[in-house]
Amino acid sequence: MSARQRDRLKIPFKNCRGGICAPQGFLAAAERAGLKKAGLDLAIIFSDAPASAAACFTLNQCAAAPVQLCRRHLKEGSGKARAILINSGCANAGTGLQGVRDARSTVNAVAQTLNIPLTSVLVCSTGVIGLRLQAQRIIAALPACARRLSRKEGARAARAILTTDTVLKVESLAFKMGGRAVRIGGIAKGAGMIHPDLATMLAFITTDASIAPARLQEHLNWCVERSFNCITVDGDTSTNDTVIALANGASGIDVGKDTGMGRHGDTGTLTASPRRRVTASSATNLQKDLSLYFSASPRRRVTASAYPELFRAALLEICQRLARKIAWDGEGSTHHLEIEVTGAKSFRQARNVGRSIGRSNLVKTAIYGHDPNWGRVLSAVGASGERIVQSRIRLSVNQRVVAEQGVLKNIADSVFDPIWRKKRIHIAVDLGLGEHRAVCWSCDLSHEYVDINASYRT
Amino acid sequence: MSARQRDRLKIPFKNCRGGICAPQGFLAAAERAGLKKAGLDLAIIFSDAPASAAACFTLNQCAAAPVQLCRRHLKEGSGKARAILINSGCANAGTGLQGVRDARSTVNAVAQTLNIPLTSVLVCSTGVIGLRLQAQRIIAALPACARRLSRKEGARAARAILTTDTVLKVESLAFKMGGRAVRIGGIAKGAGMIHPDLATMLAFITTDASIAPARLQEHLNWCVERSFNCITVDGDTSTNDTVIALANGASGIDVGKDTGMGRHGDTGTLTASPRRRVTASSATNLQKDLSLYFSASPRRRVTASAYPELFRAALLEICQRLARKIAWDGEGSTHHLEIEVTGAKSFRQARNVGRSIGRSNLVKTAIYGHDPNWGRVLSAVGASGERIVQSRIRLSVNQRVVAEQGVLKNIADSVFDPIWRKKRIHIAVDLGLGEHRAVCWSCDLSHEYVDINASYRT
Repeated sequence: MSARQRDRLKIPFKNCRGGICAPQGFLAAAERAGLKKAGLDLAIIFSDAPASAAACFTLNQCAAAPVQLCRRHLKEGSGKARAILINSGCANAGTGLQGVRDARSTVNAVAQTLNIPLTSVLVCSTGVIGLRLQAQRIIAALPACARRLSRKEGARAARAILTTDTVLKVESLAFKMGGRAVRIGGIAKGAGMIHPDLATMLAFITTDASIAPARLQEHLNWCVERSFNCITVDGDTSTNDTVIALANGASGIDVGKDTGMGRHGDTGTLTASPRRRVTASSATNLQKDLSLYFSASPRRRVTASAYPELFRAALLEICQRLARKIAWDGEGSTHHLEIEVTGAKSFRQARNVGRSIGRSNLVKTAIYGHDPNWGRVLSAVGASGERIVQSRIRLSVNQRVVAEQGVLKNIADSVFDPIWRKKRIHIAVDLGLGEHRAVCWSCDLSHEYVDINASYRT
Repeated sequence: MSARQRDRLKIPFKNCRGGICAPQGFLAAAERAGLKKAGLDLAIIFSDAPASAAACFTLNQCAAAPVQLCRRHLKEGSGKARAILINSGCANAGTGLQGVRDARSTVNAVAQTLNIPLTSVLVCSTGVIGLRLQAQRIIAALPACARRLSRKEGARAARAILTTDTVLKVESLAFKMGGRAVRIGGIAKGAGMIHPDLATMLAFITTDASIAPARLQEHLNWCVERSFNCITVDGDTSTNDTVIALANGASGIDVGKDTGMGRHGDTGTLTASPRRRVTASSATNLQKDLSLYFSASPRRRVTASAYPELFRAALLEICQRLARKIAWDGEGSTHHLEIEVTGAKSFRQARNVGRSIGRSNLVKTAIYGHDPNWGRVLSAVGASGERIVQSRIRLSVNQRVVAEQGVLKNIADSVFDPIWRKKRIHIAVDLGLGEHRAVCWSCDLSHEYVDINASYRT
């Protein structure tokens, strides 16, 4: 959602500085351990106080060692955590029990260095699969890293977790509740092996809101479904996908009260509002509903009963921004794809159709080559595995209708020349079957993608 | 299966000449209608007598007009057909009702020209999606095409159906039953948009065996699952995928008797034989079982009770050869991938794992770049959606073990130099979960794939 759209919708979020260190009580640090050929490759995110922790991990059945260890610590630590250790340069995946032992030795060192319980340390790795983790290098770099811990190190930590990424992925938002500021910050990495399944790449989100681990997990699951699980770069689900959210309560604002949010169910819509109207934008239904909720009286102080909804909307906004940054930083990409599917029977149907388009090598190469071969989009809709009705499909590209009732229009190629000059290509598909929608993000497939991945290890 | 393997297994197939015209009573012809920029683009396959027809079509929900018309004709013609009209250069997909009308006008012209019933004509198209079919050009070229019909035109017909293909895909086999020769021939096209789902690209198979349409359809379904549905080039399921088999009975040999083949079920194994043993080769379980059946007395005349099994094995052989040719002619490919998955709980599990590897852009680019990044294969196994146990996976490449118990070995890159010099890369995955296996075929992902598909229409 652009700042303009947000203003128009009057959702009371404000961008703020600081990334993961924007919320009170969170510190970060980064160091070079020597796992990558050059540059920072080690980061710590630290919470002054025990924070509620929620996480989503890859559904890849060959989950990496750090993923296995994180799962165990979250369980044994009753959903509370203090620190996250992250390294780039080595995924510590396909490394068996030795990999788990290596990960544990680094986590142990973090617990001792920071004087916190072992199970309050989470760990994530990203990089080459199958290499043994050089745990000693990490352990040797830890004291220097710990000494750097401060609120000003958020950007360096965001840099330390990158691999083939070309841009930093940092976001932070502030909003008022009961006259107090609550903040959410997040960083992420990812540019290849991006086709998250129920969770994704690496993303770390911090907030000073107060919320129980179980509620935070509910919110995170809901938001991940609508953000990281809506992106694809190459259709390859990673072994290390992880999203972790920490909430330390430092703002003193409790956003965990139950206000019947279960009603929204899987569809992302609030219970019917007479004023609800579907408009074309990349905001989610929830955001639109919220906007109507808040726009009724934009200056009114948010009442406590709306805290959970506002918090979830802000969490979703952070997740979607980070997810979009990952998709649009896709390896070798030259165009950003936004795929909006409307008229679906369910959110899931809409998303599956969107991801099928975003995953199609043929759609992606056509866009790279500025070839208005929209038939490939139609084919990808049909190949999504979802039951659709061909004769109801309406397809448009940057507001230009290219197919109606499932029939492609005969449009001169030159009509699309202005579209190719834009970085962002917006593909809208209306399935004509229902009222649900989803937005997915992807990128084109270029020679550079082949270059990058034909020699990733070397 | 190589000729050597076949000899060793003593399956009584022989290669023969003639492709789709090898079986008695089948004629073919090709012409230029002017749908492609250059070269042949129109073909007819014709049976002297009404033939039992079976077909598998794409599960892409945006099925092309010719697919819709074929389905109707097969139903209305009670599973009998005389002719197949095929054009390249235009897929007649995404063309709505107009597309069906255009396809029908060409089928009508074929029926009149050849003086056969309308419903005995099937029709297939391949090429650009979304273009209207230039039916008049086809109709104008039909008389000349019909005049060319002969047994010698098989190769020209095989050429006329190609688009981005670089090699002809023609196969024919002969075998003896009751002292008489029975033949099966086939042609296929396809190099991109290859990720067949229950059916595939274009493939046409003829035989002079005698068999009822329903039995032929059973055999075809079974064989397609183990051949065309085991290949992938780019993960994109086409709108026009079609396999048609015609059996005209001209050999006088009935292969349609029921001998309890239902027992083989979905797994491709005959009921247990004490001598059964799993060996590493690309032959299917059925073929191995048959080999044991026949090798008991290789010179013995095949008894009538074995006709259905032998016929199905020959049909499978043709389907697998054509499928492999498609995968290995993948757009821009420089290496042929054969992925053998063993130790699976079911054939379907084995195939899903194999296709997940064959579909992975990261595996494909690594092989293109001669980067022994086998962790990507492990990741693709885990991302297949199948329940597997990481610690049981054993992975080898051209007989060299690269991972055991889910742990990648530390092997010097130079060890793989001899493998990269080979055109064919054989990836073997043992899941350690059961006794089922599948073989899948794919190719690498190169700069040329991007080139071809960035400017397919232009």
